[in-house]
Amino acid sequence: MKLVPLGDKIVLKQLEAEETTKSGIVLPGQAKEKPQEAEVIAVGPGGNIDGKEVVMQVKVGDKVIYSKYAGTDVELDGEEYIIVKQNDILAIVEA
Amino acid sequence: MKLVPLGDKIVLKQLEAEETTKSGIVLPGQAKEKPQEAEVIAVGPGGNIDGKEVVMQVKVGDKVIYSKYAGTDVELDGEEYIIVKQNDILAIVEA
Amino acid sequence: MKLVPLGDKIVLKQLEAEETTKSGIVLPGQAKEKPQEAEVIAVGPGGNIDGKEVVMQVKVGDKVIYSKYAGTDVELDGEEYIIVKQNDILAIVEA
Amino acid sequence: MKLVPLGDKIVLKQLEAEETTKSGIVLPGQAKEKPQEAEVIAVGPGGNIDGKEVVMQVKVGDKVIYSKYAGTDVELDGEEYIIVKQNDILAIVEA
Amino acid sequence: MKLVPLGDKIVLKQLEAEETTKSGIVLPGQAKEKPQEAEVIAVGPGGNIDGKEVVMQVKVGDKVIYSKYAGTDVELDGEEYIIVKQNDILAIVEA
Amino acid sequence: MKLVPLGDKIVLKQLEAEETTKSGIVLPGQAKEKPQEAEVIAVGPGGNIDGKEVVMQVKVGDKVIYSKYAGTDVELDGEEYIIVKQNDILAIVEA
Amino acid sequence: MKLVPLGDKIVLKQLEAEETTKSGIVLPGQAKEKPQEAEVIAVGPGGNIDGKEVVMQVKVGDKVIYSKYAGTDVELDGEEYIIVKQNDILAIVEA
Repeated sequence: MKLVPLGDKIVLKQLEAEETTKSGIVLPGQAKEKPQEAEVIAVGPGGNIDGKEVVMQVKVGDKVIYSKYAGTDVELDGEEYIIVKQNDILAIVEA
Repeated sequence: MKLVPLGDKIVLKQLEAEETTKSGIVLPGQAKEKPQEAEVIAVGPGGNIDGKEVVMQVKVGDKVIYSKYAGTDVELDGEEYIIVKQNDILAIVEA
Repeated sequence: MKLVPLGDKIVLKQLEAEETTKSGIVLPGQAKEKPQEAEVIAVGPGGNIDGKEVVMQVKVGDKVIYSKYAGTDVELDGEEYIIVKQNDILAIVEA
Repeated sequence: MKLVPLGDKIVLKQLEAEETTKSGIVLPGQAKEKPQEAEVIAVGPGGNIDGKEVVMQVKVGDKVIYSKYAGTDVELDGEEYIIVKQNDILAIVEA
Repeated sequence: MKLVPLGDKIVLKQLEAEETTKSGIVLPGQAKEKPQEAEVIAVGPGGNIDGKEVVMQVKVGDKVIYSKYAGTDVELDGEEYIIVKQNDILAIVEA
Repeated sequence: MKLVPLGDKIVLKQLEAEETTKSGIVLPGQAKEKPQEAEVIAVGPGGNIDGKEVVMQVKVGDKVIYSKYAGTDVELDGEEYIIVKQNDILAIVEA
Repeated sequence: MKLVPLGDKIVLKQLEAEETTKSGIVLPGQAKEKPQEAEVIAVGPGGNIDGKEVVMQVKVGDKVIYSKYAGTDVELDGEEYIIVKQNDILAIVEA
């Protein structure tokens, strides 16, 4: 099964976050604020959204930073995804 | 009796959710957060909605993910439906 | 006396609701959440509403489902009506 | 003195409300929720309101139902009026 | 010193309010709710306000009724004024 | 160092306020509500702001009254400034 | 790794703030309200944002003042950044 986003929606998968504190202790992902870095899994077609022409600017595989309070969590086949509007994506993270 | 949605409205029927926890216990649907997966039962004609041209992008029978806080629950002939705007549909789930 | 709605407003009359619980007890309408099914009594002319062209899509006699939190209750000649905007009507119920 | 409303504003005068309960007791107007029926006293010229063209659809003398939470109460020469926008008028009551 | 309002703003000066209750007691202005009648002291040039063309419809010297919750109180040379947008003026009071 | 405002933003410097009460006591500025009179220090270029054409109507040196709840306080080189949008400026004070 | 902002977004890095109180005590940055001065690290391409044409007016290296409640904090490679919309940048600080 796969998610095919509508309009300006984008399906994201959160990147795992492990972090070493300054004193060297590793904090597992759950103990921290939800990381905002994610990978783009699927991109809607864009087009006319609420009477405005939206051109999609991210592509599948991009690593992105998205807005902290945005998006809807969905679960499919035991995997968790976040669906956001393109406008909630703040930046692409380039290697 | 059937529901004929107006404008950009879409009639959904929630899919039954049963889930096995990692330890193997089956949780019935009611014990969990409302699942957001639903089947499209009827689709409005779209057209000019609040001065904006809306083209409908889902069709009857599509399995969709919809926004958690969207929609109105209605009951007809003992069956429960959710009526949402197309904009509240996040993605189509393809097999 | 009759109500002649302006613009995109629609006069509705709630349908009586009686319901049998699964165990067979009949609950009178007042004991339950306000039913959202209503009959269309009068339809505004539509036209330019706040600078947007609105075409009316329901007609007198239609049975409709309307949005739970919408509308204004009015009483005329001892009868109760609800006046809603067309946009608050979710679907027409067809026999 | 008289009130000359600007733009899409309309001056209303509330109609007196007396009501007989089902058991026959007459409740004076103050004891009940504010009645929403009023007579149109003066009508603004309409025209370009916030960049939208508004055509006035009520006339002096019309009996109207207006939205419960709309309008500003004003007092002039010991008389009380309500000034509403035309959009807050729900319906005209015809005899 | 004088106030020259920008855009669609209007400088008002509240009219003094004294009122005789039905039993004949005179209440000084401060003891009552703020009166909403005021005189127009200065009128902005109108024109393009937030992308909308606004034509000014009141003139200096007009007595007006303005919206209860609108406006900013300012003090200049010991005099108090209220600056409102034209849209907050409900009606002109004509003698 | 100097502040160069973007778009329709305007840099203001609050005018010092000392006030003699009716009984002759001088209240220092801090003890009172923040005065809303300020001098224009720098003016943005205007132009297309959120898709609307904004023409700047104030100039450096103007004394202005600005909206009580508007603006952002900033400190630069030990001096305090307020940055507001032009729309938050209510009137120019002319001598 | 680097952040490539989308649309009208801008990546900022807060400038370190140390401040000497009037009595000469140095307060480290954390003890004070978050300083609003930052350096521009990356600038989105602008263009059509929600149907409005946005031209970017800041460039990499600019020192800017940004709106106190705006932006999203992100961390990348142990460095903290703020991503804001251009509209949240109030002024450029010129030397």
